[in-house]
Amino acid sequence: MADAFDNLRVVLVGTRNPLNLGAAARAMSNFGFAHLRVVNPYEVAFREARSAVGASAILANAEEYTSVADAVADCTLVVGTTAVRHRELHHPVRRLEYGSRLIRRQLVAGRVALLFGSEKVGLANEHLSHCHWLMRIPTREEHISMNLGQAVAVCLYELVRDAQATQRPEKIRPATANDAERITAVLLDALRASGYVQPDAAAATEEKLRRLVRRLKLDADDAEVLLGMLRQIVWKVGQ
Amino acid sequence: MADAFDNLRVVLVGTRNPLNLGAAARAMSNFGFAHLRVVNPYEVAFREARSAVGASAILANAEEYTSVADAVADCTLVVGTTAVRHRELHHPVRRLEYGSRLIRRQLVAGRVALLFGSEKVGLANEHLSHCHWLMRIPTREEHISMNLGQAVAVCLYELVRDAQATQRPEKIRPATANDAERITAVLLDALRASGYVQPDAAAATEEKLRRLVRRLKLDADDAEVLLGMLRQIVWKVGQ
Repeated sequence: MADAFDNLRVVLVGTRNPLNLGAAARAMSNFGFAHLRVVNPYEVAFREARSAVGASAILANAEEYTSVADAVADCTLVVGTTAVRHRELHHPVRRLEYGSRLIRRQLVAGRVALLFGSEKVGLANEHLSHCHWLMRIPTREEHISMNLGQAVAVCLYELVRDAQATQRPEKIRPATANDAERITAVLLDALRASGYVQPDAAAATEEKLRRLVRRLKLDADDAEVLLGMLRQIVWKVGQ
Repeated sequence: MADAFDNLRVVLVGTRNPLNLGAAARAMSNFGFAHLRVVNPYEVAFREARSAVGASAILANAEEYTSVADAVADCTLVVGTTAVRHRELHHPVRRLEYGSRLIRRQLVAGRVALLFGSEKVGLANEHLSHCHWLMRIPTREEHISMNLGQAVAVCLYELVRDAQATQRPEKIRPATANDAERITAVLLDALRASGYVQPDAAAATEEKLRRLVRRLKLDADDAEVLLGMLRQIVWKVGQ
């Protein structure tokens, strides 16, 4: 997918705040998207963002346009982001989870423009008319409008998100049954030596202990450490 | 899940920048999380963030602590966020996609603390020692460290993200076969009246047209509009 991501064009329209330009570029870099386009940004904001300490290559290479039409001309899919739900929108509005799937599919074949409007008013109707469809982040009805830099980060995260990773098993190396049994044995030695085990309940105590050790869900390294500790205790108790 | 989300505590440790405190609170509001805790924030930053224009109820109600231990004392699961991958971490590090599933599950039963470290150094080892495990956002190896406000937004988005929504069908109402057939008929009338249809190829032309109209994937409203246009054309051509 990394090559396909090279086909994405993040298009910021009428951005006013240099911090948001910088934040958008940073999120692009975090998630592996290189191509930023700006349409009529506030000139001062754009200059400031580009000259900021640590300004990225992404900002330095950003392409500047004077119209949305020009900024998306070479794209085969144009998607506008919107916080609006109830306005008379003449476009299908898709949730980010679903829309990003469609974008990923299209990125394999050609360039896709993802548009973000200005901080105050979002994308105007003229901008929206260049879009094939719109995408919204699933924010609360009571507070739908996100900060621009955060909205860019969330959209790009969803694009790189790995659905398989939700199922990924833990990387810890679990203790083996043999580890558990060695711990059980040493612990039992310690308990016997300490007088904890009643002779007439020895078997029951051993079983109880065995079950308890299994419930600990030890990882292999912890098992080794624990075993060393217990052996030391057994040695001390046996003296 | 909304009620369970009330169990999340977003814990910002040693935050320096008031804009990041504000951005974190805004993302919390966007995604429906109300409870912010701060541990030793830069006092000036905290005061500034709280008094900023549009500062949220979330910031006003933020609880202030002087240690991570106190800030997470009532939580049954404590998760630290980290950008670090290769450092000797004494914790399992889980990708956001997977970790957030575990958090969602735990939120049903009790409070969960999600910790974010300071902008410069992240969470210190002492802070990490209070965590059950760590979570990382899947950023690029070449640029792993995210802006704090954006990291909070992405983590909270993943928590509210609806896996079912990736499969959600489009909400557009597609045109029926009857709509398509009416359009085909009127278009055929127009083509006949215009002399486009060769008498000896009429059947082939009609079939070709029928297939073409089906490929348009019209929605029901567009079909109606198109039909009106075509009827007008037929009327004009027939005059």
